Formats: sequence, C-alpha cells, structure tokens
Amino acid sequence: MAKVKKAPRPKAQTPKGFRDYFGAEVGERKAMLDRIAAVYHRYGFDALESSAVETVEALGKFLPDVDRPNEGVFAWQDEDETWMALRYDLTAPLARVYAQHRNDLPLPYRRYAMGPVWRNEKPGPGRYRQFYQCDADTVGAASVAADAEICALLADCLEEVGIPRGDYVIRVNNRKVLNGVLEATGVADEGQAAAVLRTIDKFDKVGEAGVRELLGKGRLDASGAYIDGVGLSEAQAAPVLAFLTSRGADTTETLANLRDAVGDSAAGAEGVDELAQIADLLTAQGYGPDRIVIDPSVVRGLGYYTGPVFEAELTFEILDEKGRPRQFGSVAGGGRYDDLVKRFTGQVVPATGVSIGVDRLLAALREKGRVGGTPQGPVVVTVMDRDRMADYQSMVAELRAAGIRAEVYLGNPKNFGNQLKYADKRHAPVAVIEGAEEKAQGVVQIKDLVLGARIAESASLEEWKERPSQVEVPRDQLVARVQEILDGQA
Amino acid sequence: MAKVKKAPRPKAQTPKGFRDYFGAEVGERKAMLDRIAAVYHRYGFDALESSAVETVEALGKFLPDVDRPNEGVFAWQDEDETWMALRYDLTAPLARVYAQHRNDLPLPYRRYAMGPVWRNEKPGPGRYRQFYQCDADTVGAASVAADAEICALLADCLEEVGIPRGDYVIRVNNRKVLNGVLEATGVADEGQAAAVLRTIDKFDKVGEAGVRELLGKGRLDASGAYIDGVGLSEAQAAPVLAFLTSRGADTTETLANLRDAVGDSAAGAEGVDELAQIADLLTAQGYGPDRIVIDPSVVRGLGYYTGPVFEAELTFEILDEKGRPRQFGSVAGGGRYDDLVKRFTGQVVPATGVSIGVDRLLAALREKGRVGGTPQGPVVVTVMDRDRMADYQSMVAELRAAGIRAEVYLGNPKNFGNQLKYADKRHAPVAVIEGAEEKAQGVVQIKDLVLGARIAESASLEEWKERPSQVEVPRDQLVARVQEILDGQA
Repeated sequence: MAKVKKAPRPKAQTPKGFRDYFGAEVGERKAMLDRIAAVYHRYGFDALESSAVETVEALGKFLPDVDRPNEGVFAWQDEDETWMALRYDLTAPLARVYAQHRNDLPLPYRRYAMGPVWRNEKPGPGRYRQFYQCDADTVGAASVAADAEICALLADCLEEVGIPRGDYVIRVNNRKVLNGVLEATGVADEGQAAAVLRTIDKFDKVGEAGVRELLGKGRLDASGAYIDGVGLSEAQAAPVLAFLTSRGADTTETLANLRDAVGDSAAGAEGVDELAQIADLLTAQGYGPDRIVIDPSVVRGLGYYTGPVFEAELTFEILDEKGRPRQFGSVAGGGRYDDLVKRFTGQVVPATGVSIGVDRLLAALREKGRVGGTPQGPVVVTVMDRDRMADYQSMVAELRAAGIRAEVYLGNPKNFGNQLKYADKRHAPVAVIEGAEEKAQGVVQIKDLVLGARIAESASLEEWKERPSQVEVPRDQLVARVQEILDGQA
Repeated sequence: MAKVKKAPRPKAQTPKGFRDYFGAEVGERKAMLDRIAAVYHRYGFDALESSAVETVEALGKFLPDVDRPNEGVFAWQDEDETWMALRYDLTAPLARVYAQHRNDLPLPYRRYAMGPVWRNEKPGPGRYRQFYQCDADTVGAASVAADAEICALLADCLEEVGIPRGDYVIRVNNRKVLNGVLEATGVADEGQAAAVLRTIDKFDKVGEAGVRELLGKGRLDASGAYIDGVGLSEAQAAPVLAFLTSRGADTTETLANLRDAVGDSAAGAEGVDELAQIADLLTAQGYGPDRIVIDPSVVRGLGYYTGPVFEAELTFEILDEKGRPRQFGSVAGGGRYDDLVKRFTGQVVPATGVSIGVDRLLAALREKGRVGGTPQGPVVVTVMDRDRMADYQSMVAELRAAGIRAEVYLGNPKNFGNQLKYADKRHAPVAVIEGAEEKAQGVVQIKDLVLGARIAESASLEEWKERPSQVEVPRDQLVARVQEILDGQA
C-alpha cells in the first residue's frame, strides 16, 4: 500500500509586506482617526465607507493592453471574468461613488473616509503593502473657498491630534501658476513641457542650481552619470527658476514674485489670483503664514493636481537611523483635481481634498513621546483555589461593573509564580489574591504592581513602610480599594 | 489615417455584491463597534488588527488539488507565485497570529478584533460579499471558566448596544455531549456518524419528527422528493432525540435529561459536567437562565466546535417581507475550538471565543427604532455676496470653535433657492443669512429649519407668532443664538 504523504505544516506568517498590529498600537491609531473624524465632521463632512474591492475598470489605472492589471494593485478576476482589485487610495473610489450616486447626493458633496488601502509594491523597511489613509474631499465646489477650507481643516486636524502650532506648516502652491510659467517660457512642444514638469519634480532633491542645469544642458549626477538637460535657453528657464524661488519674506512679496514669473500668461495670473484669495480667506479666519503659507517651492503633486496644491510638513527635527538630525517632513497632502469624475460621466466636476498619512503622523507623535509608553493592562484576579472560580469571577464582575478593566487568570493556576508573571506581561496595575485563609477571614490581598516594581527598583525602606505595595482589605472593600490604588497610579 | 477609437467610459458601479455606506450608517456601525470594543476591553481583551490579506496556506481552507483556490474566498497570486487571499473571518487570522507570535504573547492570550471580512459567494438580497465581524477569543485557556466568561461577555455586549434584558437569550450546548450521545447510539461506522451529525444539523428546519424519520428510514421532503434516512434503529436513534429534546423546565432538569441521553459514555459525562460548571459559574455572577440558558436544541456550529457552543438570539418578533411576524433570530455565535493552532505548530492549543454579527445586530436595532432616524446635518451659512466669502468663513470658524458642526455653502451661490435646498438635503438644523443690508446693520438672520418645517406642516398662526422660525440677531450673538436653537431642537 502506498504511504499517504502528510501535507507539510503551513507557515504561520503574514504575507510579504503585511504586518499585525497589537493592543496599544491599534488603540493609538483608532484614537487618532477618531479625533480627525471629529474635526472632519465638525466641518460638515459626512462619512463614506466604500468597499475595499472595486472593479479595475472603475479604479482606472491600467492600460488596455496590459494583460493582467497587477501593476501597483492587487487584482483578480471574478467568476464572470470581471477584473476586481483592492483600492489603492480613497480618491478613486470617491470618484466612482460620486458618479454612481450623484443624483442622490447633495451638491457640493463633502465626504470623509478612513481605512486601509493596498499597494502591490515592493515592501521595504517601514513600507507596508497595506496602510491607512484618512481623507476629506469636497466634490462639486469650484470656488477656491473650498481649497482654503481644506487647508484650515488640515491645520485643525494636526493640532487636534497633538501637533502644536509651530511644529507644522502647510505650504500651498498652484498648478495654474506653473501652467502660466510654462507659457512664459515659450515652450510649445508637449514633450518638452512634460520634461520641464519632470525636472521641477526634482527640485526637492537637486535644488535651484540642479534644476537650472537640468533645464539647460544637463548635469552630472552624484553617481557620476551625465543626465541630459531639457535644452532650454537661460531666458526660457528663467520663469521656471523664478517660480520655484519666488517665496518672499511675506505673502505680498511672494505673490508679486509670482506675478513676475508668469509674465503675460492669463492662466498664470488666474493662478496667482487664486493663491491671493486663499491667503486672504485664511487670514480672515485667523490662519496666518505661521500655519499656512504660500510657497511655490512645494512641487509634490503638481503633476497630478489641476489647481491649488497643499502639503503639510512637520518642522521639528528627529534623528535618522544614523543619529543625524533631519526634518520629519510631509504628513499630509492634497489639492484640486477637476477631472476625476469626468472619466465616468463626461462632465467636469470640480473637487478638492486632502489625505492625511495617519501612520506617519503616529510615527511623528511617537518620536516626540506624545503617544506610546506602556499601556495599562487589566487588574488580574489570581486563582489560589481552582474550585472557587465562581468567587474570582464574581470579583471581576464587580470590578467591571465599576468600570475597572479586570480579568481572572484563566491559565493553569497550579504555579502561582506563572500567574504573577502573566500579570507582569499584561502590564497589570494590580493583582488580587484570595487564598483559603483570606476567604475564611473575609479579606483579600491587593498588590499594587506599579508601586511594587518601583520599590523593587529604587525605593528606600521608609517609602516602603509608608506605602506598602500589598494591602489586606475586607472583601467588601475590594472595588473601592482597587479604585483608590488606580487613582494613585494615574 | 486610422481613426483612434476612444475607450468607452467606465461604469460607475460597485462590484457585484459590494455596497457603499453613507453618513449615519457609517456612524451607527462605528458607535456599535466602539461600545462592543469597550466591553471587550473592560473584560481584559487586547485589540489585534491583522491585515486583510493572508496567504492561502495560512487560511488553510483549500484542498491541495484545487488549481485555483477561489472557492469561497477572493484569491490571487503574488509576484513570487504565492497564493494570497482576503480573510473570510477573524478566527483563521487569529490562529496564524498566535502561532507566529506565541513566544511574545501572554498566555492565555485574550484578544478582540473587528473589521471587514470577505466571502466569494453568490450575493443575494441583504447578503454582501464584504461585511463586518467583531470577535473576542481567549487562546490557551482550557478551563470552562473561559467559556462561561465569553457567555457573560456576550450578554454584556448585547445590553451595552441597546438590547434590553428579556429581548435576547444566549443558548449553550456542548459538542462533547453530542459525542457521548453518538457513543450511546452504538454507531461505530464513521460515515454513519457523519450522517447522524448532518441530520442533527437539520433539527432547526425539520424538527423532532423530521429528525426521527431522517435518522431511520428517511422522509418525503416538502418538495415531494424522498430523502434517504441514516438507517438507525429506533433504539439507536433514541439517545439523539433525547439529546435534542432534553431541555427541561430548569437547568437541573436539563442536565439530568442529558445524563440520561449520554448513558455510560465518559466523554458524554464530561460534556454534561462542563455544562453544569458553566451554569454554576454564570449563576454565581448573576447571569441566570433568563439571559444564558443550557439548551441542547442549539445545533448550529456543533460540527465545527470541539466543546461548549454558544448562540445569541434576539427573542422579539419582527415582521418579515410579507408582513408576517417572525423571531429575529441569531446575532452572535461561538464556542470552543481546540485544533486551530495545531495546523501550524502541531501543538493542541485550547481556544474559545465569540463572533458578533454587527450588521445583523444593527438591522435589529433599526427594526426596533433604537438606531436610525434622520441624522442632523451641519449649520449652513449661506452666501449672499460672493465677495464676502471671508465673512462667511469667519462665521463658521466661530461656530466650529464652539463645537458646533457648521459649513459655508460652497456651491454656486447665484441661486439662493438652491442654497436652501442644499441645507434641506443636508438636514441642516439652522441656516444663517447675512446680506448686504444685514452686514450694514451689523446683524444676521438665523433660520430654524426644524421649526420651519414643522410650522409649514401643521402649526397654527399663534404658534407661528409665538416662536417665529427666523430671527434677526446682532452679529456678535450668532454663536450663542445658534446654540440656543440647537438646544431647543434636541
């Protein structure tokens, strides 16, 4: 008889690029999302929860000639051959939702959404293939008042989650100004215009001098390779450089510099006017340049957006993995995109919004010690006599009824040391002990584990005497006494 | 030149079996999840959030000879050919997480998890391919005290979300008792034993007489087809029927009936003892049979679980789609499953837990009118003069700073009627109006839209005079007056 080969045991592993979140990590993210949601709601935005799965057609990121659309997304075919995929952001689903339900939705439609998105990308350190986004968008409002509002909203959110004023700045730029600048260069060829755009995208990395070279003849990069330039003359490149470096001492100066940079371009003038209006609206509401600033050096997203572009940066320094100080950088971005719904309906629907990178923001708060630390576990009622489980369960029932997080030790109670080790691993603030003797006397022992740990570390004998880490109290004072100890620890 | 064929517009549609959730629906579910999480937390359970994506190997639902594992799940291959899938529940990921992280986790490990799960099934009315689960499980506790605690936890959760005592019951059964009953039948053949199990599963549908026939010679079903029976003798079938109908007037009677049903079976006696212990533990904590009852007629899940099995049912009647009263039925279930982690590690790890069907529970509360109703929208500040957007934005900034949900109308302000229609569609409680005249006089108009609607419907002239739905107040009293109106509406 042939031997039946046993299947090998499955590996207990998350798929590559995915991870698990435990306890306090989950709670901290939830608390942050709740706070942001409260601000979004106060601004009049309504919640929307679309499903994680969309048709690839609706996501619309793929070329028709790609056989299997897994470029960047996780995709598969449904039984009826329809390609489906996990959403890669919350904006593409919003466009689909708005197009699908537009007859029932208010106009403008203000919605917020939060939840995981998925990217089929190469994972790296700190880069996961599932992460949270947290967006607010206004669909159907052409007015720059909508853009200004998004900026104010973003500032309020950052402060609400614990980034104080002064530790962040929201920079605002405008794609229309860039269009004006392109006009001013006199570049007519579309390919050349695209090359200028790509070059501008490198401003963050190569700086003014680098962009100047790249717009002209080209430059040697750090690796020694020669990068061909766009081939503009100095005169042609001038408006672009003027644009990127136009930030002045104050908004008035910045706007004047921008007007110079766009020259006679009507589109450019419109863009500068929009920035002026945004600055005025924000100033009137008390959001000055200490929080939200017109800054044309912000180039991220300029290729994607069609009007104003926003980016929130944290301005404090952190230490990088090599211990060198660096700016924390970007935690949120957004802007105006007027073409997303058009794919579905043929109609241009103006839209503007912002996406907050919750995981990065949490990382920033952890860096600053504003979230994190040791989470508090439950009060652990130990089991001295396994036949009296009902007694112990009654104790936790009383504690829970008083709103105190509590549990009975449910492992094998034989080894009491394991119970205390368990309480320690759970970061239990208090352990309760009731052996046969205590039961007979109608008392319980209450161990202050936080104080106990402190005493074990450092306390003097006097302190120990003054406030012993274990007390014996009548059984009917259990809840009151535990509460007292918890209050003392807080 | 060949004409470039334009790609057709994508359809703006959710994939089949998926849906969008808007505004209040999202908020109501979130509120319910928050309440349940608070109870889970108070019981000492820690949050766990695993990713939506698992390897198919870890989910372990598939036969090795199935080429494409899309039976029941949404699955696809990663770049390195690994099959991945969306989780279909929260228990399979827990087994993987526990096996992967067991050296770092406390023992017992008590975790809760909530989030969407996905099923690749045929969608139907009210049946979606993405829905929420909300689970609490204790891993590594062999004691039935852990099972009893899960039952108490479930009762507390139901009451916490608004199901009053008397409107629900949690029924408890035990797979071990069933094993004893099978022993008592004398059925030795595995195939026949499996057939008995499948027959028991039909008890809910066909009742005692139906099961009696199906265990014996067979029966004619409703459609007129003859269903073959398992072929047991009357004497063999007797313990099974005794088991299913063993619920007595009280727990003592039920347990006595069960002892009769399992005869000499040691496994059966162990199962009955476990039920007795669970009942005792719960009674000691104040959870009597009005809330949690030993009821061997609960057969759902008996095939899956290895020990105690729980099911929460709502006992009130609702009207079905044809207007006939029927019981609302099951909203949560769980039990002990001791084999899940073994797949990964070879070690048997005892585990017990519960899964609450959040969407069904919400449906129940909506039926009873305990959630739902018209959600309140934001205060809408209308735009009479588009050049004074900054004034209007300042108003909402003041309202928001006072914690009042508010927004400026951001659509085209030309047609004032559209602004009021918008406020109506948003269920705005109040609209604020400041035209040029008001501005000059330093006042604003505040329209109570809730009262306005009521007056339009039914009010007498006297009422209208006494409390007009529109008032003019000095600009600096805007916030106070709006707050007053909102308080009056509450």
